[in-house]
Parts: sequence; structure tokens; C-alpha cells
Amino acid sequence: MINAVGRDIPDYLLVDGKEVYQGRFAKDGQILKRDAPTTVMNEKPVADKLCASIREACEKCGAHDGMTISFHHAFRNGDYTASMVCKVLVEEMGIKDLRVAATSLGDAHNLLADYIEQGIIVQVQASGVRGRIGDVISAGKLKEPAIIRSHGGRPRALMAGELHVDIAFLAAASCDKVGNASGNGGKNNCGSMGYAIPDSKYADRVVVLTDTLAPFPNVPASIKCEDVDCVVVVDEIGDPKRIGTKEARVTQDPRDLMMAERAADIIAATPWFVDGFSYQTGAGGPSLAVTRFLEERMDAKEIKMGVAFGGITGNMCDLQDRGYVRKIVDTQDFDTKAIAHLHDCPDHVEMTVSDYANPANKGAYVNYLDYMILAALEVDTKFNVNVITGSDGVVRGAPGGHPDTAAGSKCCIIVTPLVRGRMPTICKDVTTVTTPGECVDVVVTDYGTAVNPARQDIIDCMDAAGIPHVSIEELQEKAYSIVGEPDPLQWEDKVVAIVEARDGTILDVIRQIKPYTFE
Amino acid sequence: MINAVGRDIPDYLLVDGKEVYQGRFAKDGQILKRDAPTTVMNEKPVADKLCASIREACEKCGAHDGMTISFHHAFRNGDYTASMVCKVLVEEMGIKDLRVAATSLGDAHNLLADYIEQGIIVQVQASGVRGRIGDVISAGKLKEPAIIRSHGGRPRALMAGELHVDIAFLAAASCDKVGNASGNGGKNNCGSMGYAIPDSKYADRVVVLTDTLAPFPNVPASIKCEDVDCVVVVDEIGDPKRIGTKEARVTQDPRDLMMAERAADIIAATPWFVDGFSYQTGAGGPSLAVTRFLEERMDAKEIKMGVAFGGITGNMCDLQDRGYVRKIVDTQDFDTKAIAHLHDCPDHVEMTVSDYANPANKGAYVNYLDYMILAALEVDTKFNVNVITGSDGVVRGAPGGHPDTAAGSKCCIIVTPLVRGRMPTICKDVTTVTTPGECVDVVVTDYGTAVNPARQDIIDCMDAAGIPHVSIEELQEKAYSIVGEPDPLQWEDKVVAIVEARDGTILDVIRQIKPYTFE
Repeated sequence: MINAVGRDIPDYLLVDGKEVYQGRFAKDGQILKRDAPTTVMNEKPVADKLCASIREACEKCGAHDGMTISFHHAFRNGDYTASMVCKVLVEEMGIKDLRVAATSLGDAHNLLADYIEQGIIVQVQASGVRGRIGDVISAGKLKEPAIIRSHGGRPRALMAGELHVDIAFLAAASCDKVGNASGNGGKNNCGSMGYAIPDSKYADRVVVLTDTLAPFPNVPASIKCEDVDCVVVVDEIGDPKRIGTKEARVTQDPRDLMMAERAADIIAATPWFVDGFSYQTGAGGPSLAVTRFLEERMDAKEIKMGVAFGGITGNMCDLQDRGYVRKIVDTQDFDTKAIAHLHDCPDHVEMTVSDYANPANKGAYVNYLDYMILAALEVDTKFNVNVITGSDGVVRGAPGGHPDTAAGSKCCIIVTPLVRGRMPTICKDVTTVTTPGECVDVVVTDYGTAVNPARQDIIDCMDAAGIPHVSIEELQEKAYSIVGEPDPLQWEDKVVAIVEARDGTILDVIRQIKPYTFE
Repeated sequence: MINAVGRDIPDYLLVDGKEVYQGRFAKDGQILKRDAPTTVMNEKPVADKLCASIREACEKCGAHDGMTISFHHAFRNGDYTASMVCKVLVEEMGIKDLRVAATSLGDAHNLLADYIEQGIIVQVQASGVRGRIGDVISAGKLKEPAIIRSHGGRPRALMAGELHVDIAFLAAASCDKVGNASGNGGKNNCGSMGYAIPDSKYADRVVVLTDTLAPFPNVPASIKCEDVDCVVVVDEIGDPKRIGTKEARVTQDPRDLMMAERAADIIAATPWFVDGFSYQTGAGGPSLAVTRFLEERMDAKEIKMGVAFGGITGNMCDLQDRGYVRKIVDTQDFDTKAIAHLHDCPDHVEMTVSDYANPANKGAYVNYLDYMILAALEVDTKFNVNVITGSDGVVRGAPGGHPDTAAGSKCCIIVTPLVRGRMPTICKDVTTVTTPGECVDVVVTDYGTAVNPARQDIIDCMDAAGIPHVSIEELQEKAYSIVGEPDPLQWEDKVVAIVEARDGTILDVIRQIKPYTFE
């Protein structure tokens, strides 16, 4: 069946009420019955929930073949716990047919790629699958298609019972003996635990892993003792210095800076740039660079930012400390400066990823976003965006909050170079749709800016401010004139990953790439 | 059927799987499927959720005959909102057959008593029904029996779907345009919103009433925008000065102080009185007075309290400020000093009443209580406690967290005078069982102290410390020798209220009192 972004979704996937994507607002107002997990009446009051080993916790929580386990990705490439736990389950306990439903996976999880190749991990559900895990998924090594969800789509799926987690293994910087856990107060802090909190609420069993046992009660706690079954103290949960990867660093590239300044000009020309505006950038370097150009425009207009949302960098904390930002509401910290700032500054507040982006509620924070600055691997002439598959068709990105913030914000601006190496970024058809074009308003490239024709209001503002713009087709043609029209990728029939829209419908599928030489 | 505390529960109440109380730990380990409410996929992003009037919010939320509405009681006797909302529903909109499921009701809600008499409010579910509402319930004016739940039993019932709230009307000191609400930051602050939070999560529709509209985003927020449908700005939500009622004031009565000192001696003689101990007192004057006597005993042993839980007074905040208490974890503030302290002190932290006392989780805070100091209207020779019905059989109290903390704590001490006026407090059979005797460890009166024979460990500690004690029967006989054996109350057959144990089984029933002259 062809869906609302023109993708052909195999009928065999449309079972158990699963539907194809029908449009940005198609599911709004639909009544959803929350399907939360089983829970258990309290045991006799216990002195503590400490387990001597990960294995003991797994046994207490009833680890079994075929179960679904989850992890959060606050430590990003510095995460130690997902591999540590999988190693115990697989190598010590011989558990088979594991399903891994992490909030995101990346280079820290190459061991899991080995287990996928060995057929021990049979399914992956995540918002991102970077690194070798993406390679093995694209090579068709999973027994069941991976499910890629946005940051907001994941808590929706948890709440609706579509994603049922048997055991959540949640790394925490500090935790007391009964499970009150925090991203601060330890020897390896990650700051916001925003991604972990829904799992602590919805998983049947919850194991906290920490390297810093704190006195009871470890409050304020991001994960609460009422939700925790077991606490395991390990040597190290992760390396905070490896959170700030290249994706989250500010660019010094003059081309990136030029695009960033243009995006700032567009923001300054639109009517939501008033005192108290709300703002977020993605983790890409050019996106982060927009923020620095906003500062002088705020000065000129004598306004302040009301709130910055999302993944937070030290850069944004600086801006708050210098009085430009009233509140920071934070799902994830991208560097050690932001981690410390969350702890120290009362106007820098943690939020859960459900608060942030879940579409199945009465208004997540993304719904109140004025400006969202995002990156893209590809944008097509229908403004559809791909942030998952590379030019070789291999899964190596992460939708993250991209579809959520694009759908919720008043003005969504993509900042991306027109071409990357020999590949056009602006193209006729994206390899994979991760964000529907109807949610994307402006595309800024180093060769010009295009505005979605659906947003005549933004076009009028830019015209009034003398900001030039071209059609998206002109950008695509320019890109093809520079690097040529790319050869179409060759696919097998087999679907290796399903891309869910944030409302749970099927937005696109990713097929096995052909021919694929596995490295 | 006779239940585990010896009460005869009418068979007609045992429908839909309802069971009689079977003992303190009878339901532990039982798997419970959470039955959360329906929710709704987000509307198109809206600018705000403000309604011009309570009526507009009620209409948007689908107010209808027979619905269940809820309120929280952080403002206690200073609450304006419950009456304000009921007046609109009844007098402006003509809604009939209302069910009111407040966290507690009292003297501020005499208007609701009128509506009960008029047959407009047909059921009440609450942890407490003080004031004229108790009178009309006892007079049999409700069409359906009231349901009295403990503070922990209420979120359990919400989670399990036994209490389904159609619309929660939640007063908040400050709120932004989309529903981020707090107990501080307004002109009438109540401090902790611990009682309101589960309703914000489980009610189908949530209306926040505030008298202080705060800039977006009003964070940190106790109630979150993702859970709120409507925001209504009213003139005044309540009077914080009327929170601190007589129940929550520290006594100066020498008899009370003597009992309090004895309770402190018992605490100091038991093995949990070590550095980091956890402690809570109820709101009764003698209970609160115990705390002041603990201070010198902490000095003598050179220890500090690790954490104080529960409803918090300025008294406890002072103790923390002077270094005696590391953390305060707070469901409710009993005075304006505690309200301000919650906002100002990072080691004084809000908790929800579900975190605090809900038995249907993996360990609420009450499970980690070392010492709980409580009051009682009656204690019988089986150590059963009554805190609901007065000596005339009329409902005029509140179990509150009494059954939860008694069940969870390591050492539960009741402090109560032996007689009150012409009524014996220590009696052969309590009028109504609100806390099962198996959860009550020590009873301190002005005529001696009795220890539950089940707690030989505590008896041994008291003997070692030279603290005298007598049997509970001796106390009962002494009481009867002073005031005589009370005449048995005369009851009609009609059950006017069901007292649920915290696990949802039926602990006792309250029948219509006979003859009853309605004042």
C-alpha cells in the first residue's frame, strides 16, 4: 500500500492493526487506551535491592530466551552498560533470541553486532543504529526487521503496549540501595536521564546499574525506588568524556557558519522571534552553530529566549549563564559542561523524552517549539528528509527527535550542504523518509535556501526582509549539475528495518542492500 | 464474611472480585495489571490551553451526569477550588449524580455536604471526610456508600482502574498557558503537589486552576503540560494560612509532652536509631512533639536523621536547617514555613503520594521507614486502630497515610491519651478498624505504654533500657475504670461507608448511626 509520503509498504507488514502513514495530523484526536505493563504488589518491606552481580539481577528478574531488554543512550559512544549486560546474558547465561529495544545504539555497541551476526540477538528497536550495528542490519542479519522509532514514538509505543520491555537495564550515575537513581552525584555523570525514565515506568522489571552507591534517599531522583527491582554496583557505567562525539561539536567550517548565519537571519525575520521564544537545535555541527548567530539578533531586538529544549550543549548553558535564555529543559546532555550545569543551575531542568516528544499525550514540549534547527542526510523535492540511510543505502543514522520536533514546531529549518563528496543532499527522492515533507518548512544550503510552498507566511517574511530564496527543484538541479544524478541503489526484496512515524504508522521500510559486501 | 481483623463484611459488597481483608502481607507478590486511562493523540499544536471560565473548561472536558471528579487537599481547610468547581457544575450547568473522589475533604467543603443532602452528589471517595460531609455521610444521605482509602490505597485504585476519574480539577499555585503547574511561584502557595500528581497522570481529563499565570515553561513543574487539557485562571485558589489547622500544630499540653518524650525514649532504645535513620510523624500535636525530644537523643548518640518523610511542618524544616536531617521528602506541607522551605532548600524534595505510600509498586517510601509516630481516636486490645469514626459513630477523621506507614515501617508507635473526656481511647473493640493491629507495634499513653506481643524484639529493647510497659489489656481496663465501659453504639443495617485496606480489600464498613439527629 502506498502511504502519504508515497512509499510502497508491503502488505504483509500491515497486520495486528498496523497502518501506513496517513499524514501529519491524521491520527490527532484519536482515543488511545494506554496499555501499561503488569506490576506487582509490594514485597514485604526489604532493607535493600542490591544484587552482587548483573547475573544475579537477571536471574531475579526472570531473564529468559526471547525476552525484550532495553537500555538508554545518555552516555552515547561512552556507554559501557549495554555491552556489559548483553555479555552476561549471552556468555554467562546462554540466553537466546534476545530482542534489544535501546533508545539508541552506536559505536559503543559493536559487541551487539557480533551477537546479531551469531543469531543471538534477533531483533533491534531503537531510534538510531549507528556503527557496525547498522552494517549488520542492512546486511539482513536480523531474524526480524528492526523497528526505527523517533524519540517521541518510542514512549508512545511503550505506553500503547506495542513495545513491551521485559527488563530495562538502566545506567545511573548514582543510586541508593533501593533504586533512587540520578544522572548526577556519581563518578561518571551523564546529566539528564530523560531517555531512561519511560523505561523505568513501563518495563516489567527494572535493573539500575551504577558505579556510585549513594546514601538513601538519593533525591531528587530521576528514576524512583517505586519502579526499581534490582540495583547492581559495577566498576564503571560509562565514560562521560565520550558523550560529546563529532555529531555534537560546534563547527568551525566557514561554509557551515555561512549557512548557520542565514538560518539565524530567517529566524529573525519571522514573527515568532519575540521575547520568550522557544528554540532547539539538533546535534549536528551546522545546527548548533545557528545559536551563536542568534545572540546578536536577540541583542538588536532586545529580547531573550524563553526556553531552549532538547539535547543540551555547554554552548547553550553559556548562553543561559549570560542571561540570554530563561529556561533550559533538557532530555540529554551532550558534554560534561552541560551535565554539571543541569545539576548546578535551577533554571536548567530535566525532562523525560515523553514530556519532550511523545505524540500520545495532551501536548509534549515539541508542540510549543517556535524554531527547530535540524540537519539532514538527504532532502527531496517534496521536502521529505532522510537522516537514517547513507548514500550507500546502509543504516547509519538516527531519526532521534527529528520527526517529532519538525511536526511540533512552528518553523522547522533544515541546514545542510547542497552536496557531500560525490552525493547530492538535495535530491529527487530520499533513500528513506524519516521526516515527512509536510513537517519541513525551510531548507538552508550553501547554494541557496528553499521554503516549503505550504508556508507562504514564511516566504512573505523572507521577502519582506530581503532574504533570497529559490525553489527546492532549483537546489536539486544545482546539486545534480555539480555531482551528477546518483545511480539508483539496488535492493533485495527483504525488509530489514521498518521506519515508524511518530504516531506508530509505517512511514517507510528499509530493504536489504544489493550487492552488499559485508566488511 | 469475617475478615482478618474480625469484621463482618456484608456479602453483597463482595462483587466484581472485591475481597475482604486477609492480612498485612496477604496480597504481596500478587501480579497486578495496571489499568491506566484512555488518553488522546495530541491535537494540532495549540498556542495555549487557557479557558475563560471553569464552565468553559468543564464543557471542553465533556462534563456529564454521573461522572467522577477529583480534587486534591494540599490547601486543607483553606481550599477554595472544590467548592468553586462543584458550584459551577451544579448551579450553572445542572450536572447530576456527581461522584467526588477527592484526596481528602473537610471543613472547607460544606457546600458539598449540601449537594449530598440534595442528592446531587451521590458518592464520595476520599481518604478523609471531616466536617459536615462526615455528618451527612453518617446520616445515610449518599446514594452509594462512601469509599475511604488510605493515601497509598488511592493511587493503587487509580492505577488498577478501580477509581476512574473523568475530570480532575487540580489547584496549582502557578501554571503556564499549557499546563505546567507548581505548588510554588504563585500568590497562594501550597508547596508540595504530591497528592495531585497521580490524578494528573490517571484522570481522563485534567483541568488546572490557578490564580497566578506564569511564563512558559513553568518548570520545574509538579504537573506537566503533557497531562493537562485546560488551564483556568481564577481569583484565588485557596488560603495558605488556613492549611495549618489544629491537627497540625505542635502541642504545649504537658500530658502530650510527657507521652512524646516517652516515645522518643523508645526510639532511642531500639536498634534502628542509628545515623541515617528514617522518620515520620503524623499531623497530630502529640505526634509532632516527639520530634523535639529526638534532638537531644541524636546529640547524645552523635547521629543525624537520614530522612524525614510525609507531611512536613516548619518544625522539621528547622531541624534540617540546623543540620539534624539530611533529606526531607515531602507529600504535603502543613504550614507556610514548610511551603517556602520546599522551594528554597535543595535537600527538601517533593514526592508523589504514589512514591510515598502506594502498595502496588516495587517499594514505596513507607517501606523504608524506620520509625512512624501516629495518633489514634481508639486503639483496641488487638492493637487495631480507629482514626475515622468519633465516639458517636460519626465519620469525622481521615486514615490518610496511617495504614500505609504502619504497614511499611519497622517500628510504628501510636501516641494517644488513655481517655478523652468521657471516652476510653484504649478499648475492647474499636468502632472502625482503619489500621490492622498486626501493623501497630507500640502504644504510648499518659497511663503507660503497651507493646504488641508480636514485637518481642521491641519489648527486649525497652526492658534493656529500663522503659516500663504494661499489657494493652491493662491499659484498656484502666481506661474503663476511669470513664466506665462505653455504651455500645446503635447502628442501622445500611452501610454508609466502606473502609478499604491499602491493598484494596475491605477492611471494615461503617453503618448508619441510630438514632441520629442531624444537626
